[in-house]
Amino acid sequence: MSSTYGENIKMTIFGQSHSPAIGMVLEGIPAGKAIDADRLAKFMERRAPGRSSLSTKRREADAVEFIGGIVNGRTCGAPVAAVIRNTDARSTDYSAFRTVPRPGHADYTAYVKYGGFADTAGGGHFSGRLTAPVCIAGGICIQLLEEENIRLAARIVSIGSVTDDRDPGEAPLDGDFPVAGEEAAARMKEEIERAAAEGDSVGGVVECVITGIPAGLGDPVFGGMENRISAAVFGIPAVKGIEFGAGFGAASLRGSSNNDRFEVKDGKVRTATNNSGGILGGITNGMPLVFRAAFKPTPSIASEQQSVDLEKMENIPVRVGGRHDPCVVPRAVPCVEAAAAIAVYDAFLGRKIEL
Amino acid sequence: MSSTYGENIKMTIFGQSHSPAIGMVLEGIPAGKAIDADRLAKFMERRAPGRSSLSTKRREADAVEFIGGIVNGRTCGAPVAAVIRNTDARSTDYSAFRTVPRPGHADYTAYVKYGGFADTAGGGHFSGRLTAPVCIAGGICIQLLEEENIRLAARIVSIGSVTDDRDPGEAPLDGDFPVAGEEAAARMKEEIERAAAEGDSVGGVVECVITGIPAGLGDPVFGGMENRISAAVFGIPAVKGIEFGAGFGAASLRGSSNNDRFEVKDGKVRTATNNSGGILGGITNGMPLVFRAAFKPTPSIASEQQSVDLEKMENIPVRVGGRHDPCVVPRAVPCVEAAAAIAVYDAFLGRKIEL
Amino acid sequence: MSSTYGENIKMTIFGQSHSPAIGMVLEGIPAGKAIDADRLAKFMERRAPGRSSLSTKRREADAVEFIGGIVNGRTCGAPVAAVIRNTDARSTDYSAFRTVPRPGHADYTAYVKYGGFADTAGGGHFSGRLTAPVCIAGGICIQLLEEENIRLAARIVSIGSVTDDRDPGEAPLDGDFPVAGEEAAARMKEEIERAAAEGDSVGGVVECVITGIPAGLGDPVFGGMENRISAAVFGIPAVKGIEFGAGFGAASLRGSSNNDRFEVKDGKVRTATNNSGGILGGITNGMPLVFRAAFKPTPSIASEQQSVDLEKMENIPVRVGGRHDPCVVPRAVPCVEAAAAIAVYDAFLGRKIEL
Amino acid sequence: MSSTYGENIKMTIFGQSHSPAIGMVLEGIPAGKAIDADRLAKFMERRAPGRSSLSTKRREADAVEFIGGIVNGRTCGAPVAAVIRNTDARSTDYSAFRTVPRPGHADYTAYVKYGGFADTAGGGHFSGRLTAPVCIAGGICIQLLEEENIRLAARIVSIGSVTDDRDPGEAPLDGDFPVAGEEAAARMKEEIERAAAEGDSVGGVVECVITGIPAGLGDPVFGGMENRISAAVFGIPAVKGIEFGAGFGAASLRGSSNNDRFEVKDGKVRTATNNSGGILGGITNGMPLVFRAAFKPTPSIASEQQSVDLEKMENIPVRVGGRHDPCVVPRAVPCVEAAAAIAVYDAFLGRKIEL
Repeated sequence: MSSTYGENIKMTIFGQSHSPAIGMVLEGIPAGKAIDADRLAKFMERRAPGRSSLSTKRREADAVEFIGGIVNGRTCGAPVAAVIRNTDARSTDYSAFRTVPRPGHADYTAYVKYGGFADTAGGGHFSGRLTAPVCIAGGICIQLLEEENIRLAARIVSIGSVTDDRDPGEAPLDGDFPVAGEEAAARMKEEIERAAAEGDSVGGVVECVITGIPAGLGDPVFGGMENRISAAVFGIPAVKGIEFGAGFGAASLRGSSNNDRFEVKDGKVRTATNNSGGILGGITNGMPLVFRAAFKPTPSIASEQQSVDLEKMENIPVRVGGRHDPCVVPRAVPCVEAAAAIAVYDAFLGRKIEL
Repeated sequence: MSSTYGENIKMTIFGQSHSPAIGMVLEGIPAGKAIDADRLAKFMERRAPGRSSLSTKRREADAVEFIGGIVNGRTCGAPVAAVIRNTDARSTDYSAFRTVPRPGHADYTAYVKYGGFADTAGGGHFSGRLTAPVCIAGGICIQLLEEENIRLAARIVSIGSVTDDRDPGEAPLDGDFPVAGEEAAARMKEEIERAAAEGDSVGGVVECVITGIPAGLGDPVFGGMENRISAAVFGIPAVKGIEFGAGFGAASLRGSSNNDRFEVKDGKVRTATNNSGGILGGITNGMPLVFRAAFKPTPSIASEQQSVDLEKMENIPVRVGGRHDPCVVPRAVPCVEAAAAIAVYDAFLGRKIEL
Repeated sequence: MSSTYGENIKMTIFGQSHSPAIGMVLEGIPAGKAIDADRLAKFMERRAPGRSSLSTKRREADAVEFIGGIVNGRTCGAPVAAVIRNTDARSTDYSAFRTVPRPGHADYTAYVKYGGFADTAGGGHFSGRLTAPVCIAGGICIQLLEEENIRLAARIVSIGSVTDDRDPGEAPLDGDFPVAGEEAAARMKEEIERAAAEGDSVGGVVECVITGIPAGLGDPVFGGMENRISAAVFGIPAVKGIEFGAGFGAASLRGSSNNDRFEVKDGKVRTATNNSGGILGGITNGMPLVFRAAFKPTPSIASEQQSVDLEKMENIPVRVGGRHDPCVVPRAVPCVEAAAAIAVYDAFLGRKIEL
Repeated sequence: MSSTYGENIKMTIFGQSHSPAIGMVLEGIPAGKAIDADRLAKFMERRAPGRSSLSTKRREADAVEFIGGIVNGRTCGAPVAAVIRNTDARSTDYSAFRTVPRPGHADYTAYVKYGGFADTAGGGHFSGRLTAPVCIAGGICIQLLEEENIRLAARIVSIGSVTDDRDPGEAPLDGDFPVAGEEAAARMKEEIERAAAEGDSVGGVVECVITGIPAGLGDPVFGGMENRISAAVFGIPAVKGIEFGAGFGAASLRGSSNNDRFEVKDGKVRTATNNSGGILGGITNGMPLVFRAAFKPTPSIASEQQSVDLEKMENIPVRVGGRHDPCVVPRAVPCVEAAAAIAVYDAFLGRKIEL
């Protein structure tokens, strides 16, 4: 099912951009786990709209209301259920797109799939707004992973033509625009502002590093960490590519360069390099798990674009109103952490334990 | 479960590189479908080892024996089950790697996960040999998709440092080394032979184009075609990255360039460009579905490498014997088609049909 | 996962008896389906507490709020999500049972499973109150099945020692105490009132008949209609047995009596009798699908019972306060219809359709 | 999917009564588990045909060949795969039933579902022969459960009109006709022989008791042990009812009689009676898990029966040849143990373990 993810935990998200509420149900979390609502709110804030001059003007409080599964701040074994009310929805912005699809959006494919009954307002169930419930589930998993000393940190490695080559180390980067190199960060912001000023948008790449992850998570073949993480991360709208470790770069390497040689250090097995991104045969090897996700530029742009009238079946220009991010990448950073955290915690619970 | 894939069909693969047999069970295929065993055998032949000077010397007949689900050449509604006997297995090649893991292989992670009980002979369940059962299932799905006029064609777009920029069109390329440009093909082969001569290996990138695919396949969020295809393709050993349409390249484009404008042509909706790779909001838009998978270089190389003795916990060199491909990419081409065909046919059966 | 049901649709229920809200998410409903909220409210009313002198005094409006998936009264393809606020919860009634489990309830097993973190208030996630979300999902499926001329009607066939032998025909029985025979109904009510007056409770059996169901629904082996329906119906608290067609009675018959002979009538294949309950080999044969579910007596009774103190590990008597039904069977009738409707609609969507 | 069962382990069965082979794949078994092939063969022998004067004359060696997942007698973490060759199939017996369905069999429903492509030979995938792969998986699970001191023992409690009221205790009963009371056993055999002599068949009831099962297995709502076990047991052909503990009998009890009072005994919590069958709220309470399954009489009987010609759509008599059991119940006893063992081991692996 398309709104569900997970094997050992199961996350189900629901709602549309302009429905009364959005939310999620998270089954399978062990009982007795403390959930810090304040920390979760801070995490949600990183994704929330209307917080920065670089993001959409739509402003949502995104207050998470837990309606099940948590008693006195701890999980009780029942599914954790939470909702966020949609408050600043303006459906009138979108009525035209039901029959004149916006390029780069899901309007057309939703029209084909749902026979004209799709809720296109604000992108409906396809909206980036649905990453808010993913962040609830992911924010919970991040807290639970930290109990196990597993930490996730994502950062921006490119925006448009600007790339950041600086090694950030493993520590998370602060702020709502996490880039390792200061100068690169400044140029990335310029790139976004320039695109916005020209009624255009830009894409970028997010890298996520997961440290403290034990060896042995994940499974062979279709249960590999690559399969699991990509199945989650492609659930974030606008992601068009993913690579692990050396990724596409590995394709041009020789085996003698790409193979990470094993060594014993401080009584533990590790690899001298990490081209594998911490994954061998789908299973974690104890090194940091590293992946990158490519985001396309926001499809909503101010300039007029060519589209079609689906009822009259003729070409017609379309102009996309609404309130949009000129670049989704900064707000996507916590979403990448969230999606990865869900995948990793799911794999963590699937550890084979000697019974 | 790690050896199972699919929602509307379910493929389960089993066996290890050196177990008595390998095979697959494929549930959910509609009854009455003709399966052409000769065509399947030809497809299997493209993946089979020992067929080319560029591939492993291990030679397997890879004869597919159907043991259930097919009566008089047609599916009967029961699960389709098939086995391939392993005949040319030489387990003595591998006994040492149980405790001295080969760099780049799953020996170490299998050791951690299975507590020393892993079948490491020939890579066990992690072996590229397990793509043979995937090719049985995929070869069947390819035949069934063709009934629906959906066709898959994968080709090599790079080997090591050699890239092929030529547009192949949509027709499948012939032979066991499918590259659009002849000159590029020659240089790629040289790249492989040079690596082999030096006891080394190379990686590469495979592109797959799926034509005739109707609009409306796939689902939003976690059921998108990107999620589905990547979950299948990462099941092929050595894949470390995947991208759809413009993929990572889209991250450096502006929205105005990346958005594919809609147009009516011959009474049908299409897009003028195909940066989306035929997928919007996770759902096919009727354009060719295009993706690329990055393969790392074969981890088995002739030269001595640094490893560790897992029992003594000390550094020790390892030399990988066995019989290996200096580059898995040519034999991976049909595997990519197979994995994609399974994902697409699974989505095809999930079409919402007016009831 | 324990709070999820379904293959082609997926229902997830959440909430506890005394959490802020209870609710459900129902994925996979085709787009464009009209949902009649008034009819659904009437269906919910049949299950709602506090409506009859025979049921609990807890009174809940049980107003269903749709928060996703429905636009202008029609499904839009996104998951249907709905919540019911809990308004008349009195948690103080239950605090003692955390460590002194009530006999016949899940207090003890929840304590073992959730290590003392279980929400025992009102039975928590184990409460019969969780059948309300099942009735939302089931009420929707009942409407969708009626579009296909498939109708469900459940009735009470026994309460305690009183059995109703009258053949009700296939029409649904009216009212909140659906029994075919009037005299039997009166004696059943007496049985409940007598038990209530004595601080005790009684069980009973519900029969469900599904008519208009086409031949060919369900699958062999583990996908049979018996497997599917029992997996749903045992989700209703207090169910301890289920049988299809002649059921346990068939075990004492001979094949010559139990076999339903085929015959052609009005150009259709039917069976002269219906000992199979409309299911052969797990698949519907076009005859009415008939099953019966056995409900144990409500475990909450007024008289003092023997229990244990789980912390002191010593015997201790317990007296169950709270507000309870002396017999859950009348309110369980719509729950049985709901659970069956979900199972049948799920199987209906799984029909193999010529592609 | 219909041929797959399980959440934490996944069993997939394949093959038809007269296909080249039948078999199963069992994923998720922890690595390093010793599997005793001789004990498994003895267990399979209890189900095998042609062993008794009371069973079918078809004689199959039913030799289990492991083709994956087991190395040197221990599981290696890869899926366990095994096949049994069909040797004594006589397809000519069945050709007529493709269009003239046998009453009580799945011929008609398979015809409807698979559009005439069904493999009806010997019942195809619906055949009781498919319980052999279930017994492979179940026999493995029985061995693994014994390592945890969990033991299953099923016995016959009724055949036709003969019921055995004797309490067998918890020890397994020996032999291929396990009945607690000797006199009852003798009368049951007479009942079967009399039916056979008259060209007829009889049904019966099997009870299964599982001891040593820890408290805390299973989940609420749809993940309850009743849901899990019934979903497995209805996979055995001819099962038409299931009940747990007091079952249907509980429906006529009062709460004060049916509730099992808790008590502390030898420092452990137990219940004085076991009307719950060891399950409260879907979760095991540490008492023996007890259930009963009702089997209908074998539909294959010697006497002529009324059927229809599906092509001509007219009534026509049918006479069932082939080789059949006059009563499937004795051979079903190990199948019930197998199905239950799979369900219990699956739940066992799903135990929430403090991480």
